[in-house]
Amino acid sequence: MTKTQNRRILLAARPHGEPTDSNFSLVTAEIPTPGPGQMLLRTLWLSLDPYMRGRMSDAKSYSDPVEVGDVMIGGAVSEVVSSNLTGFATGDIVQGYSGWQDYSLSDGVGFQKVDPTLAPISTAVGVLGMPGMTAYVGLLNIGQPKAGETVVVAAASGAVGSAVGQIARIKGCRVVGIAGGPEKCAYVTGELGFDACVDHRAADFAQQLKAACPDGIDIYFENVGGAVFAAVMPLLNMFARVPVCGLIANYNMTELPAGPDHIPVLLRDTLTKRLTFRGFLVFDFADQQPAFLRDMSGWIRDGRVKYREDVVDGLENAPRAFMGMLHGKNFGKLVVKVA
Amino acid sequence: MTKTQNRRILLAARPHGEPTDSNFSLVTAEIPTPGPGQMLLRTLWLSLDPYMRGRMSDAKSYSDPVEVGDVMIGGAVSEVVSSNLTGFATGDIVQGYSGWQDYSLSDGVGFQKVDPTLAPISTAVGVLGMPGMTAYVGLLNIGQPKAGETVVVAAASGAVGSAVGQIARIKGCRVVGIAGGPEKCAYVTGELGFDACVDHRAADFAQQLKAACPDGIDIYFENVGGAVFAAVMPLLNMFARVPVCGLIANYNMTELPAGPDHIPVLLRDTLTKRLTFRGFLVFDFADQQPAFLRDMSGWIRDGRVKYREDVVDGLENAPRAFMGMLHGKNFGKLVVKVA
Repeated sequence: MTKTQNRRILLAARPHGEPTDSNFSLVTAEIPTPGPGQMLLRTLWLSLDPYMRGRMSDAKSYSDPVEVGDVMIGGAVSEVVSSNLTGFATGDIVQGYSGWQDYSLSDGVGFQKVDPTLAPISTAVGVLGMPGMTAYVGLLNIGQPKAGETVVVAAASGAVGSAVGQIARIKGCRVVGIAGGPEKCAYVTGELGFDACVDHRAADFAQQLKAACPDGIDIYFENVGGAVFAAVMPLLNMFARVPVCGLIANYNMTELPAGPDHIPVLLRDTLTKRLTFRGFLVFDFADQQPAFLRDMSGWIRDGRVKYREDVVDGLENAPRAFMGMLHGKNFGKLVVKVA
Repeated sequence: MTKTQNRRILLAARPHGEPTDSNFSLVTAEIPTPGPGQMLLRTLWLSLDPYMRGRMSDAKSYSDPVEVGDVMIGGAVSEVVSSNLTGFATGDIVQGYSGWQDYSLSDGVGFQKVDPTLAPISTAVGVLGMPGMTAYVGLLNIGQPKAGETVVVAAASGAVGSAVGQIARIKGCRVVGIAGGPEKCAYVTGELGFDACVDHRAADFAQQLKAACPDGIDIYFENVGGAVFAAVMPLLNMFARVPVCGLIANYNMTELPAGPDHIPVLLRDTLTKRLTFRGFLVFDFADQQPAFLRDMSGWIRDGRVKYREDVVDGLENAPRAFMGMLHGKNFGKLVVKVA
């Protein structure tokens, strides 16, 4: 390791709508020295995830925003360079929210050791990490899939959606994915084994979705919002469940869509079809992590769950990759190879 | 009993928006004769409830619509005039969906005997019947009230709302009602013991509601929709629950409100605040009827649950009373004294 500088990507300014280069700044600093009760981490893999867009805004949300001038928040897989902390030793691989930077200090809170024998360590921020566990807890606790039901998941080739659909298949459901473009759709049905996949960019997307769900929809795993949500709503069956996990199509929205206001339609359908909408975060089900790791690592080992990573090389390329992700330019779980 | 004719109120035409006199017709027919396995019922108390507006329309809903030319649907408390049915004897008091008419035949399916020792028999379509049980199952199963939480209920002086609020008080919650006008609000706080009540007709209704909920809202029992829903949304706390029971403010709506479309706001709040919206009908929890009757009759006996009936005299006055109810003109559970 020859580096002596720590590159850090800061939130330079809050975006209005689409983030641009000007919202980020790359600065360099000395590599910090761990004090008592601290360890120094070297980032190996940085995870890029849609939730980060929310943390760039100061709108009230489930977490405090990143302050302007602070390092961008991000989960990462890191190597312990040196440690003054019991339980963490030089060479350990750990996972935690160490941010968009080469090096970070940690007091260990919120960090977990990664077991490199389970799968490649980058999966600790992917299929075996936050996105995979989000899929697992949201589908099983809120979706409550039953064999024979129809499950629809958007962003189906992505980190969360691909796991949702494959777990639903394991539970005996018919699974319909929604993805952007024929290449992703082919992957979703061919590699991931979904029963069908519909391209949301198609002009007749809503009709195609309806045709792909001849028995309606029992579970819609919501991580998109926008036009996809509008196409799903009329297809929901009696007693359908909608885990609300993300709304990537809305994150860059600067004003509400034109009217009319469809709230009365949503409420009417909720009542007459006895729908359940429930928002959640993976942290709400933190106690299910052991079960998740056990099940998911088993399914990966057995070949029942596959995953795909979209690897970006170099920390300096993180902002552009992140901006592209908000438009679906990634293909698979987006990770940055930092070191 | 001197009557020889059976008066029946039919759905004459489907309403577009507000129902009017022309949507109903009063016809007379011979009193029917019960065949084998049937009983003849004489209606004593007819219940008028908001859900009936939905059944007048042919829009897809949880139940089939009333056909044009058929007797209007309605729950009623009746006396058995004569019976060829085991288990039902002349003089028994029964409750079931016998419709807007003086007399009806029944094969017993869906009918239950009423225990006149529990409370006045009219309560079998009120606080001890469908509205009371709707409040009970929706609040307890979906709302899941915890002591110290804030519960908001609209139509607070009505059949469902008054029961919701009083049960929530029994469960240790702070309860804020919403009602139309100072007289109803005074009743809600004075008689029913709610902690506060806000008049939704006030120009500064949303501000008043906010002031009445200094700790936000943990449970919103939705039976109104419209502007009340809009005022409640920003006040919902993290992990708030919204049992969706009715939408009386929307039932006569003929077109959607002007934009913008607030669906993205609702979804965003659902996600960031991890809200639960769940539609339900009392029939979804039919197995809880014994617990409901035990608890609710006990609470009435102990004076912990009070109820108020708005009695309309004469079947012929049912249509006008029903139309008035859709504007909140009733004060308490609306029942028609038929005989």
